[in-house]
Amino acid sequence: MQLKEELKESKRVYQGRMIHLRVDTVKLPNGEEATREVVEHPGAVALIAVNQKDEMVFVKQFRQPVGEELIEIPAGKLQEGEDPMECALRELEEETGYTAGRIELISVYYTTPGFSDEKMYLYLATKLYDGEMKPDDDEFLEVVCIPPEKAREMVLRGELRDAKTMIGVLALCDRLGIKG
Amino acid sequence: MQLKEELKESKRVYQGRMIHLRVDTVKLPNGEEATREVVEHPGAVALIAVNQKDEMVFVKQFRQPVGEELIEIPAGKLQEGEDPMECALRELEEETGYTAGRIELISVYYTTPGFSDEKMYLYLATKLYDGEMKPDDDEFLEVVCIPPEKAREMVLRGELRDAKTMIGVLALCDRLGIKG
Repeated sequence: MQLKEELKESKRVYQGRMIHLRVDTVKLPNGEEATREVVEHPGAVALIAVNQKDEMVFVKQFRQPVGEELIEIPAGKLQEGEDPMECALRELEEETGYTAGRIELISVYYTTPGFSDEKMYLYLATKLYDGEMKPDDDEFLEVVCIPPEKAREMVLRGELRDAKTMIGVLALCDRLGIKG
Repeated sequence: MQLKEELKESKRVYQGRMIHLRVDTVKLPNGEEATREVVEHPGAVALIAVNQKDEMVFVKQFRQPVGEELIEIPAGKLQEGEDPMECALRELEEETGYTAGRIELISVYYTTPGFSDEKMYLYLATKLYDGEMKPDDDEFLEVVCIPPEKAREMVLRGELRDAKTMIGVLALCDRLGIKG
């Protein structure tokens, strides 16, 4: 079956500081037209960071879009032209103070392909060395370190409840053979 | 440490068909002001659906925001006032033709709390019965059934590469004790 939609027209309807919004008109496989609202995002990185005590490193922060504090794996947006791995090392150091002796790309995935083009580069960072946090001027963070077994339970209980963090914890537990 | 941001002003900058965009001005814990761009989303459901052959049920579709065909777990947006579980049963039937004899809420999580309020209700649907697909007028889908062990390998290889699908596969494998 033919599934592909053909782009007929693309209109930028909002240009923001971090994200933009466009409305695409597409021709469907049956010849009809439909519109698709697309959030344009610069892309992001996230890190499964494991410290020398074999704990996962998280950051706790207030998230205005959802109105609550969340415990998440370290993450950040790509700057224009920035290499994702360099971005990951930068964000890890800024948000947690840790520098990584070893870093490996685990996965590249789409966060919300139904309405956004955001691509996420997920890294595994190990051989961590302590340092000083350097958060952005508008970032207020607390570092929280949790053993993977406990983080897994927190995912299952809904205490870790954002997608990238759930993927990071479940993927690390899969690698380590940790299960219930 | 005080992490909470205080909302000073909220301005709707775009009202779309499915999503809206607002810009919030917040007072940071240090007294400074910052702006936050927030995509308002109606919320969504997704299903880990396991058929009578113990295979996971997926749908393949073209995703205009990312410009490619993806294999994803069944999912859909909440309609106004709709109960998430009813939405999940409706989407499962529309997208795959299956009706579920048993359905259970596994997780409620945020897909992208950095820029959106989208909340995802993830269900486990079992005791599936075959029926007829009833996709929306602008939806073109193919149903694909894959054993969980193989789906896990596809996640690790990047062949299943959207966040909700990765969470669904990893969470099911965690439950079933499936690992490498």
